[in-house]
Amino acid sequence: MAAKSWIESANAPDCEFPIQNLPYGVFSVAGDAPRCGVAIGDRILDLAACETNGLIDAGGTFANPQLNDFIALGRETWARIRDRLTELLGEDGNRDLPLVAMQDARLHLPIRVTEYTDFYASRNHAFNVGVLFRGPENALPAQWTHMPIGYNGRASSVVVSGTDVIRPMGQLKTDDGPIWSECKRLDLELEMGAIVGANSRLGDRISVAEAEEMIFGYVLLNDWSARDIQAWEYQPLGPFQAKAFATTISPWIVTTAALAPFRSEGAERVNDLLPYLQEDRPGLYDINLSWALNGEVLARTNYNVMYYSSAQQLAHHSGSGCPMRVGDLLGSGTISGPERDQTGALLEMTEAGKHPVMVGGEERRFIQDGDTISLSGHAQGDGYRIGFGPCEGKVLPARS
Amino acid sequence: MAAKSWIESANAPDCEFPIQNLPYGVFSVAGDAPRCGVAIGDRILDLAACETNGLIDAGGTFANPQLNDFIALGRETWARIRDRLTELLGEDGNRDLPLVAMQDARLHLPIRVTEYTDFYASRNHAFNVGVLFRGPENALPAQWTHMPIGYNGRASSVVVSGTDVIRPMGQLKTDDGPIWSECKRLDLELEMGAIVGANSRLGDRISVAEAEEMIFGYVLLNDWSARDIQAWEYQPLGPFQAKAFATTISPWIVTTAALAPFRSEGAERVNDLLPYLQEDRPGLYDINLSWALNGEVLARTNYNVMYYSSAQQLAHHSGSGCPMRVGDLLGSGTISGPERDQTGALLEMTEAGKHPVMVGGEERRFIQDGDTISLSGHAQGDGYRIGFGPCEGKVLPARS
Repeated sequence: MAAKSWIESANAPDCEFPIQNLPYGVFSVAGDAPRCGVAIGDRILDLAACETNGLIDAGGTFANPQLNDFIALGRETWARIRDRLTELLGEDGNRDLPLVAMQDARLHLPIRVTEYTDFYASRNHAFNVGVLFRGPENALPAQWTHMPIGYNGRASSVVVSGTDVIRPMGQLKTDDGPIWSECKRLDLELEMGAIVGANSRLGDRISVAEAEEMIFGYVLLNDWSARDIQAWEYQPLGPFQAKAFATTISPWIVTTAALAPFRSEGAERVNDLLPYLQEDRPGLYDINLSWALNGEVLARTNYNVMYYSSAQQLAHHSGSGCPMRVGDLLGSGTISGPERDQTGALLEMTEAGKHPVMVGGEERRFIQDGDTISLSGHAQGDGYRIGFGPCEGKVLPARS
Repeated sequence: MAAKSWIESANAPDCEFPIQNLPYGVFSVAGDAPRCGVAIGDRILDLAACETNGLIDAGGTFANPQLNDFIALGRETWARIRDRLTELLGEDGNRDLPLVAMQDARLHLPIRVTEYTDFYASRNHAFNVGVLFRGPENALPAQWTHMPIGYNGRASSVVVSGTDVIRPMGQLKTDDGPIWSECKRLDLELEMGAIVGANSRLGDRISVAEAEEMIFGYVLLNDWSARDIQAWEYQPLGPFQAKAFATTISPWIVTTAALAPFRSEGAERVNDLLPYLQEDRPGLYDINLSWALNGEVLARTNYNVMYYSSAQQLAHHSGSGCPMRVGDLLGSGTISGPERDQTGALLEMTEAGKHPVMVGGEERRFIQDGDTISLSGHAQGDGYRIGFGPCEGKVLPARS
């Protein structure tokens, strides 16, 4: 039987935050200073207050408005604090903890995002999008099955779930030359984000095994994309303003400790990988994912359709000797299964607008003003589930 | 007649750091804590000590090991401090200042690089490299004359002049499939770097005029590039590990105030720009640039060959509503004139290795282990020059 908490709401089979999860976030109540907390059932344990009360010791880092300093303490501290939280919140735990009702809290960006890198690791997505941008002949880049292709994204526009997304302006191509316009092909990208939890030095390379140990946890991630801006700008140096206006992440970081029981093989390989990318054990996770437009679920997929794990991505990222730092965010790449109702982007689902989907009785080719996009994810255990909490954003009209 | 300093070494006509310059940096002496300083002749004025002594007031920010907090104080403070430094260091200035001999100081990275963006704004370079990567038909991307093409680079590997550069490892393409190898086509890119000096908010767009006001100053920048890694990895999402192993900047930030007399038109336009990119006044600067391999100058060019100014780049960067932050570094893109001895990269100079150059009696196609690459730059005034100081790095063998 699955372990239980003395907090009853945490024990419901569909609760996202049971005692097996214990995800970290940053919250505030009624205008108080943001501080670190852990989600349990329908409540948040105030970790800053726990430190003040002597219940937990993380060197005072939980009073900070981001988790970077806690994360930087390292894996042994992560394990020690998790053990202590399991004890405090377990069935025989401490009934006198500083708890806050989730509904009373405002959730903030859980980390100061040091740098943001986005990958491209779903073969279905890479192929589907490649067909639309470059035709079926050149759809899947030649190196795709040999390396996790990635690019540097923009960290300054990473926002927490609930932040409105302003439709971007940008250059669009027309037959009469480029114009300055609002984006007309606004899209989502359903992804997971891995949070790097340790530093590496200039010149060091990280093995896949070391990379696994360096990842603190995961969030849901929506890499909002302006497809028309992207099509005109992205050659030869990659996406730039098409991706720079917003990237939404969920407020709770689900730790690798919580996800450990859900390790999973990824997609079947079509060729051997070079040794620096080979994994000793499965590096993906069995995480059920879906996304909804205005509350209507349009696609369901799973993180384990991916071709590269975040550990492989991190190993590749440091391959040249590039230093990695606590708070670096690695987007998995859009997660798409092979079927239309498994795609993680409208670009794929509608084939660039050719085949609209119906949502609440209306056609959608791309995202309209006023639409809300919500991502969901959970790993299903025996009698409990490890949920990720909300990852949503409402689109506001462009500021022309 | 040009203004003089009471520090005689600052008054030599070829001195890089006369009183008209006053560039900011971060230095330490004999293992002391790094702090902010300003270069004057062959000395450094210790700005932290000036604050302690009550000679200058920048809110204590000069005691910090980076200039970000000073820069964040804003343009009025920049102007006030420059006036005060001109007074203290002028001919009738204060003879009792805390000065350090430049030769005794270690220079550090002058800013904490928040994010690093690299552009592609020399038409000669874009065309020449385009021919080599994609052939003459597709050399200059269609959008190139309409927008400053840029991509997000990696901030964690920006290093200060004098830092050794380790030859990167990476995936290279061969006829028998990709291999893991040391880079065999290591190159430089001669660039200027603009330092962003103010924040903008998510959703805000910055006009070109506002962007000019937001730029604190400039450094020399070498965007080291692994051409073979780049060729295999860069489609469709742009350069990644080929550029992530090191970017060298000069230690002194030359302010826009010092460069103001050297404003210059850039390259001739082949089409009108969209209004958001139009400039009211010339946005480039007349800065003589050169680079040397093991001390032998191989090319000379000028910053004013560029097609886009950093103000235009910054305006474009925020076009989607992307927030900009103090400490963001914008690489100009490789600066190349039309002739072979005006190119800012060996890739162009040797046509991807086909036509080697002679250096010290030896052939060079790309950079070899043990080679040192040095960039130089100065604006020539009437009787004085505004120099940038060193921007160099020595290449060490790969760690295989």
